[in-house]
Amino acid sequence: MLGIVKERLFTPGPTPLLLEAQARALAAGNVHHRTEAFRKVMVETLALLKYYYDTRNDVLIFASSGTGAMEGSVANLLSPGERMLIGTAGKFGERWLGLAKAFGIEAVTVESPYGQPVNIDAMKQKLASDGPFRAVCIQATETSTAVMNDVRALGEVVKNYPETALVVDAITGLGTSDLRIDEWGLDIVIGGSQKAVMIPPGLAFASVSEKAWGLIAKSKLPRFYFDFAKERKNQAKGETAYTPATTLIIALNAALEYIKKLGRENLIANAALLAEASRVAAQALGLKLFAESSPANAATAVCAPAGVDSGAIVKELRTRFGAIIANGQGSMKGQIFRLAHLGYYDITDLFAVFAALEIVLLKLGQKVELGSSVRAVQEVYLRHAGGQ
Amino acid sequence: MLGIVKERLFTPGPTPLLLEAQARALAAGNVHHRTEAFRKVMVETLALLKYYYDTRNDVLIFASSGTGAMEGSVANLLSPGERMLIGTAGKFGERWLGLAKAFGIEAVTVESPYGQPVNIDAMKQKLASDGPFRAVCIQATETSTAVMNDVRALGEVVKNYPETALVVDAITGLGTSDLRIDEWGLDIVIGGSQKAVMIPPGLAFASVSEKAWGLIAKSKLPRFYFDFAKERKNQAKGETAYTPATTLIIALNAALEYIKKLGRENLIANAALLAEASRVAAQALGLKLFAESSPANAATAVCAPAGVDSGAIVKELRTRFGAIIANGQGSMKGQIFRLAHLGYYDITDLFAVFAALEIVLLKLGQKVELGSSVRAVQEVYLRHAGGQ
Repeated sequence: MLGIVKERLFTPGPTPLLLEAQARALAAGNVHHRTEAFRKVMVETLALLKYYYDTRNDVLIFASSGTGAMEGSVANLLSPGERMLIGTAGKFGERWLGLAKAFGIEAVTVESPYGQPVNIDAMKQKLASDGPFRAVCIQATETSTAVMNDVRALGEVVKNYPETALVVDAITGLGTSDLRIDEWGLDIVIGGSQKAVMIPPGLAFASVSEKAWGLIAKSKLPRFYFDFAKERKNQAKGETAYTPATTLIIALNAALEYIKKLGRENLIANAALLAEASRVAAQALGLKLFAESSPANAATAVCAPAGVDSGAIVKELRTRFGAIIANGQGSMKGQIFRLAHLGYYDITDLFAVFAALEIVLLKLGQKVELGSSVRAVQEVYLRHAGGQ
Repeated sequence: MLGIVKERLFTPGPTPLLLEAQARALAAGNVHHRTEAFRKVMVETLALLKYYYDTRNDVLIFASSGTGAMEGSVANLLSPGERMLIGTAGKFGERWLGLAKAFGIEAVTVESPYGQPVNIDAMKQKLASDGPFRAVCIQATETSTAVMNDVRALGEVVKNYPETALVVDAITGLGTSDLRIDEWGLDIVIGGSQKAVMIPPGLAFASVSEKAWGLIAKSKLPRFYFDFAKERKNQAKGETAYTPATTLIIALNAALEYIKKLGRENLIANAALLAEASRVAAQALGLKLFAESSPANAATAVCAPAGVDSGAIVKELRTRFGAIIANGQGSMKGQIFRLAHLGYYDITDLFAVFAALEIVLLKLGQKVELGSSVRAVQEVYLRHAGGQ
């Protein structure tokens, strides 16, 4: 019916691109990575990445998706016969299991139902009763269910085990939640480029603590591409062991400059505000939140109303309004939809997507008071704006 | 207070860029205009421009702002001692007067108060009583007041004067209103690139009828850069008399392909829908429309509430939400604000900007029912969507 429908991403990765970062990469033209100019960019970018991570630990960059750095964490920490403790509460937690299996590593799991966080007390008990474990693996934010895990509490526990590293998949946790990597003892923290750093997919990041480096030195699992020690040595000089994804690194450099200017704490506060407003707005429409106890800031998972397939909501939003949101994953497909807040999103985006969602729900036969969820977002904005 | 605030244009030029058109221009790299490759682009673009204009007349492209083609119309049609009839109802109508003065041409004006359309009957009378006139000049849409003039009725009148050309500034009228150039006898119709064609400023367009070409052949005013006959001859071969703005023409080519795929009638219907929804939404907030009798689709002009400077609305929208709308121009500054609909805007943009406007009005001390204007936009959408 309508003439123009612009495409708008509201997915928890890829996220809306920071165009000025894209432009920088494009303007760079032909780049050779074995040059002084590129080494300078690489060194700068690694320093900015430490600012973004808020850590004194080394941070490495890989040309891969985030899963590559997850694999690297396993392959660099463990030796045959050693074991992993995995906290899982969704599709990405299950990825640790897949990695353990691929490398022939025995895994003990603490599993929570979808929609709930991992039980950290249960992990503490397993560490005490079923150890030793070389690695403890968890998600900071389980993206498939939009749940946040208490990695701070887990860090306090793992600190007491000098031969055990805590590995945190913070692919959607970075830039959306307060992660005190050094203080909490998060030994390896994994990130990805298509998330809160606002650039396209293709880069994975891993911060590595001194404790982790000590364990890596003793590890015997096979690795070649994701060899952390080799990358540490190279990246200290602004080099990479293998060909770096140059345009993505240039874009990352520009995006991290933007984030530094904005302030990483403001990036996190932005996601927190949008998450809060989304929860209130969904509830204003009579919708149930999927992650009730420990919702993430990275995204909000909302249950489809009874009798409505969440896929229909996703499809109608896309067709009518060009707004691309995420369906549930795995067993949650058709039951929930997810709206992202990580990275380059603002409150005005939220006004738009909730107004669109109201129409979609109406068209799918639901009773909707038009404007009611937008009003909820506005009220959250006003509460935060206070006297401003 | 908020972390991320994205910039969003809601101004009647520049308008939001079609990024795929920008990307095409950038990807073209170094272009030389005296090449077969560029001639091919030029010929294609001129053909697409005729589609966009919906005319069989020649359409010329100039590297200039729209005002350049306005000057060209005067300089190419008139001779010293000849006269112009001008219909004016705002800042852009007054530009015709400035041009007449600069070229030493006597002008007779029919002037309407800001916010009202030009009185076409009065122009008809002037043509009969005060002639002969070589040119009759008017705006299809007076952007400064967001008023539409009845150029169809004026065309019917001017058709009866074989020695008089009708010149229409359709800089914001093209792509937002039904302009039957050939049928209505619009002899010269002027456009600009930063309007409904979704690309940056820097190009002006002019369609020229056979009647106008006949008069141009006899005209004696001085012109060099804006020499229509010289450009006609060059552009027929895909050349230009002077250096063309190559990257803008490549972007125009891409944008016009998008418009052709969308359908020019859908582009116009899109602007009409957004204009209708904006009027209803503004009224839902208790605001008065500035152009009550003949509102344009290109933009909506809204009166600021009593005691509020419209500049404060513009400033707060920009600061809080990154939404850039236009203040009134000239004597209307501080009294009205203007929200554009021409080009790459969609209904989701409107949800967003009205939700933002509600908060701004509230912060400026107005009584606002949050969500009420968004609901008005939603209702217009639903009415147009019908059973869809």
